[in-house]
Formats: sequence, structure tokens, C-alpha cells
Amino acid sequence: MARKADKSSGAAGTATRGSAPAGARRTAAKLESLADAIVRAARARKSPKLEIPIRALSNVNFNPRKAIIEMGDARQTREFFDMSMARKFMQTVLIAAQCKQLIEAGKTASIRQIYYLAKHDVAGTREKTFTDQAESDPIIEDIEVAIEALREELHVYASNRGNLVGPITIVDDGNTLDCMRMGSAGYPVPSIVEPDVVQFRKCSAKFVLHVEKDTVWRRFYEDRFHEKHECIVSHGGGQPARGMRRLLRRLHDELKLPVYCLLDNDPWGYYIYSVIKQGSINLAYESQRMAVPAARFIGVSSFDYERCGLSDDVKIGMEDADVRRAKQILNYPWFKGKKHWEREIRKMMQNGFKMEVEAMINKRLTYLTEEYVPMKLRDRSQWLD
Amino acid sequence: MARKADKSSGAAGTATRGSAPAGARRTAAKLESLADAIVRAARARKSPKLEIPIRALSNVNFNPRKAIIEMGDARQTREFFDMSMARKFMQTVLIAAQCKQLIEAGKTASIRQIYYLAKHDVAGTREKTFTDQAESDPIIEDIEVAIEALREELHVYASNRGNLVGPITIVDDGNTLDCMRMGSAGYPVPSIVEPDVVQFRKCSAKFVLHVEKDTVWRRFYEDRFHEKHECIVSHGGGQPARGMRRLLRRLHDELKLPVYCLLDNDPWGYYIYSVIKQGSINLAYESQRMAVPAARFIGVSSFDYERCGLSDDVKIGMEDADVRRAKQILNYPWFKGKKHWEREIRKMMQNGFKMEVEAMINKRLTYLTEEYVPMKLRDRSQWLD
Repeated sequence: MARKADKSSGAAGTATRGSAPAGARRTAAKLESLADAIVRAARARKSPKLEIPIRALSNVNFNPRKAIIEMGDARQTREFFDMSMARKFMQTVLIAAQCKQLIEAGKTASIRQIYYLAKHDVAGTREKTFTDQAESDPIIEDIEVAIEALREELHVYASNRGNLVGPITIVDDGNTLDCMRMGSAGYPVPSIVEPDVVQFRKCSAKFVLHVEKDTVWRRFYEDRFHEKHECIVSHGGGQPARGMRRLLRRLHDELKLPVYCLLDNDPWGYYIYSVIKQGSINLAYESQRMAVPAARFIGVSSFDYERCGLSDDVKIGMEDADVRRAKQILNYPWFKGKKHWEREIRKMMQNGFKMEVEAMINKRLTYLTEEYVPMKLRDRSQWLD
Repeated sequence: MARKADKSSGAAGTATRGSAPAGARRTAAKLESLADAIVRAARARKSPKLEIPIRALSNVNFNPRKAIIEMGDARQTREFFDMSMARKFMQTVLIAAQCKQLIEAGKTASIRQIYYLAKHDVAGTREKTFTDQAESDPIIEDIEVAIEALREELHVYASNRGNLVGPITIVDDGNTLDCMRMGSAGYPVPSIVEPDVVQFRKCSAKFVLHVEKDTVWRRFYEDRFHEKHECIVSHGGGQPARGMRRLLRRLHDELKLPVYCLLDNDPWGYYIYSVIKQGSINLAYESQRMAVPAARFIGVSSFDYERCGLSDDVKIGMEDADVRRAKQILNYPWFKGKKHWEREIRKMMQNGFKMEVEAMINKRLTYLTEEYVPMKLRDRSQWLD
């Protein structure tokens, strides 16, 4: 399981050109070949162009066999000698060059920093290369799909968000971390968790329990759920950031850990589950590397009100927007046609109320961690796939 | 500096009644005396009542000597035999009892969990003790001020938010953590950092550099600023959560570390600085334990555009709301009359633009960490107090 020896002092970004990790060299080579094609076209006196897969709902499909959202094959051509495309062409090349420099310097940058790095006057004019970040963000995504690299492989980082606790030793940036002994906020999951930076060592966890928020996570931490059940408990601080999703995927793929999601009984909870499981529509091309199709939803279920004999203190009235959203989700191809999901969502609409994970402690403080979730884990018939 | 021996396996909440830490015993005793007064009144056949300091702008003052926001002496009486107060009286006693139980069980809960724990039907009626969390949150604050305890001492937690890196060893929940070797997201600051849970050990840091967001923090982490300058670099994930503010205060008080704030050049940046330094108006009673009056603002300053020869790529136009907010801040008693702050804010309005910390890298990726901030640290004349 160990991929890399522990370094006495590590730095995520101190890899230099010669010694860059294999992953970084591969991504840099792809960016180079993008540039080579442009140079070749220019030398041949042809109009340089880039082929970019189309990132739109029209080019997104649900692959029922793999159970993930995938991009189709539709592509657009971005040409330099075309007034309507020249600006975007220039921007694409600029950002690609920026990423190549980051990789070679062994540095990373946020999407905001990329914007500031790439923004300047076009030589000899008073025109800006970018007027705001809304112009540079989609270009980063274009490059991701064009060369089939994750943003993290382009050395672009998102938020550090989400934490976990459990019996696993993780090497992060050369530091060996026993995730059972990381203090009362757990191990903080960084934005970039690619194998170059984050490696798994010893792991005796039997599964991952993923919850939505840090306040719920803390309940499990304090009640020592991870010790009693020998598992990893993670949270994403709301909809999980890319780093957390990618880490869940790696924990599942490399360590064969089942991933159980415990989320609120509301359309937002269903949606978070859907993103963890299938990927998001916006960023369909990432699903292959970030989605966990085998993830299971263990609660809170619309049937738990009766099943667990909850009091009406746990009820939160549904708003019109919730009903609309629930109907939408019911029509997602990956929920549609699944009998148990249809039952689940219809039951929520019948109930006319939502329930939060934290509401389970209305019975008593430890009901959630000592009775409710253990019951859910024992009874597979309650899991939603 | 060490307050407590390292435990082989710790739990924030496993203290039992008999062995509860001194702080917990003190808070429990205060809650008990609150209840005792009510029982005494009832036995004497008088109307039981509670005295609650008034938490409103009218009862908030800036203490220029201590340089923090303080509550005044105005109090309200909350009586049981008064139709207009009976409900709030009942709620106050309920929440106080809830907190006492948490303390005795050695457990903590979120404000949301407190709400669910305390919500039920009033015996013999169909009336709920609380209809929503908006009713229970202010009651928690009432109890805080009534018994002069921080929320954390009542065993109520907020968000785990914010991270740090630097040459300090922290014992958190019995785990000894070398904050130089905590992986690429640093040490995650928990919501509760009271001395019962978090203790400082070895520290060779010379100061704390506090930045606003995790994306900026990561720039400093990756550029090894904390190594080169032997300092702690922290971020609060936006406006710092209570845990981070309290930790900054403890680092300053107990380890005598200067705290330097590096924030965006906009009204929001000024406001974050103001909260770290003086406390917030809403929660004035906490300032005594959370504010860091000696904190210094080292940038980004409105004068840096010219001082550092920045390009106009860094400019973000001010909106009307920014101008209004800047004028408001100019009138805060702790900014008002400070010549250098008046100059600073007026200059921003004159500029007509704002600047973000991340914009500094428009010059080059490492300008921020290798030139800009070192220059700021060297030249005290640029600091704002």
C-alpha cells in the first residue's frame, strides 16, 4: 500500500523539473503536445486550432453500466484566425502555458491566482487578456477535458475542505499522519490528494462513513464512533469539495473500503449523495476519477420517522422549492427507474416534511451514534443504492 | 508551557463528573447557582426570576484603554409569573439544564443539537418548548452573559474552521501534534480550544501571520513561509470562527506572539481585522476572552498600489455598497480618530478600487510571500494599529 518512503521534511511543491513525479511529467507532456500542434500548424502556414470537448448538458450521458455521468464525444474547434474565437484561443494557450510553468516549478495555484497570473495587457494594445475570473475559470475546465487531466494534475487547487478520523495512516506531503491521533478536528483533507502528494499506509478501517457537516462529524468523533466501529468518519463541509471526493474514490478503489453516506432527508441530501456517487453534471468529465458508484445511502430515509418512532419535533416543513427539487431528482436518469429511490422520494413528498441527521438526537444525545447508525449498518435492506 | 501530560488516547469529552476539569466544574457550579436562586424564590413563594445582561447595541461600549468592545451594566429581569416572559424564562432554564447535563456527561453539542435536545412538548400541552432554532440560539447567548462563561465553556460548539502551520507543538484532545508536520492542509483548529482540550507545548514561532482564506494560506504553505520566517501562518476560512479567534488570543496572551493580519484591501478585510482586534458588536461580551487588541494590520493597504508599483490588473472597482460600508467603518469608535486609519480608508475611497491579497501575485507567483510580506514585516511604519 505504501507508495513512497516517508521524507524527513516534505513540500507539496518542491519537485523540480528533473525530478518531477511521473504524474506531473505526464501532464506536462500533454500540455506540450497541445502547444506542438499549434506550432506545427503555424509553421505549415495553417490556422492554428485547438479541439475542445463540449462541456454542456447536451454532451453529457449517464452510463448505466459504469453508473457514472460521462461526457459524450462532441467537440468544438477553437481557431486562431477567426474573429469570434481568437480571444478564447489566446486565453486557452495562456492558461495552458501558466499550468505548464506551475508544474515545472513544482508549484500549485488557486483558480483565482491563475487568473491574476494570466491577466495582463495584450502586447501593444490596451486590451486585457482576461477581464475577470469568469473568463478564466471555464478555460481551465476546457484544458482539463482537452488533455484529460484533472484540475489537480494541472497544479490548480480548489478549497481545502473536509476532515476525517479513523484507523488509517496517511502520508501527506511527506508527513506521516496517524488519523486516529490528529486532535479534535481530525485530519484535514487538502485540496490536492493525488498520489504524488497523498499516499495511504496502514489501514485497518472496515468502511468509510461520510457525513455532510463538521457539526455532525464532531458528534461522531466525540462519541468515538470510529473506534467502536473501526471505521473512517469523514465530512465534506457541505457539498464535498474536490479533494474530499477524490479521496473517497481513492479509499474505495485502492483500499476497497465501502463508502456509506449519512445525509439529511431532504433534496439537498439526495443531491450530495448523487454527486459523490455519479459525479456532477457540470463537471461530468471528472466522474471517471472522482465518482464512487458503489457508495450507499444509509439515511436519513423518509421511512425513518415511522421506523424509528421519532417525535414530530424532528419535522421540518417542505417548501415549494423542495418539492420541485425532489421531482427533478426523481427524473435524474440515475434515480429514475430505481424502485427503492422512487419509493424513498415519493414518501418524502407524502410526508410533507424533511428531517436532518442532527434531529435524530432529539431522542437523546447518543441515539444517533449508538443506536440509529449501528441499526442502519446492520440492516442492509435499508440501504439505498 | 505544558499544562497537561500527553495522554495515550484522549477524548475531548470523556471527563466524568468526578474527574471533570477545573474549568468544567466552575461552569457547572455557576449554572447550579442560577438554578438555586430559582428554587429559593419558589420555596419563599416569590416569583422566580433571572437577571440577564442586555445584549444590544445600546449596552455596548468601546473601552479605549483596553481597546476592546465591552458590554455595559444594563440588565433585564426575566420573571416566571409574567405572561410576557414566562416562555423565555422556561426556555432559559431548559437550555441551562441542557448545558449542565452536557458538562456533567463530558459531552459537547452544536447549537443545532442543543435545539433538538431541548425541543419537546410542554407537559400536558401541545405547545412546543421551541418552535425553531432562532428561539434557542439567543437563549444560549443569554446564558453566556448571565453566568459570564464562553459558549465553549457551556460545552456548546460552533464550526471547526481554520487551519495553521508553524513551529509549535499543540496537544489537542490528548494528541501531541507537531504543527510543522501536519500535511498539506496544516493543523485544523477545532471549535473548542479551551485549555481543558488544547494545550501549547514547545513553540519557537516568533509571530503569527493570519490570512483570510485557505487559498491564500496554501500559497504561504507551499512557499514555506513558515519555515523561512519561523512563524505560524493561520487562516480562518473567511471571517474567523470562534475557535480560531480564541486560539489567536491564547497564542498572543500565553506565548506572547505578535499577531499580524494580512487581509484584502476592502471594507470586508477591515471588518475582519476589526473583529479579530476588538471583537464583534453582536457578541461584545466575548471580547474579553477572544479579542486581540494588540493585533496589527500589515496589508493590503490602499497605498500599496503606488508603493509597490502594481499594475492596474489588480484593481477591482468599488461598488456603492463598498463606499457605504467604508464610511460606516470610518465611524466605528475604534477607527475614528486614528489618523492612520482615516488616511487608509479615505485613500481607498479616493482610489475607487479594492485589491485582494491574491492579486499581489500578478507580479509573479512568489511576489506575495517572498517580497511583499517580508517588506511589510520589515517596515513597521506601514503597519496599521
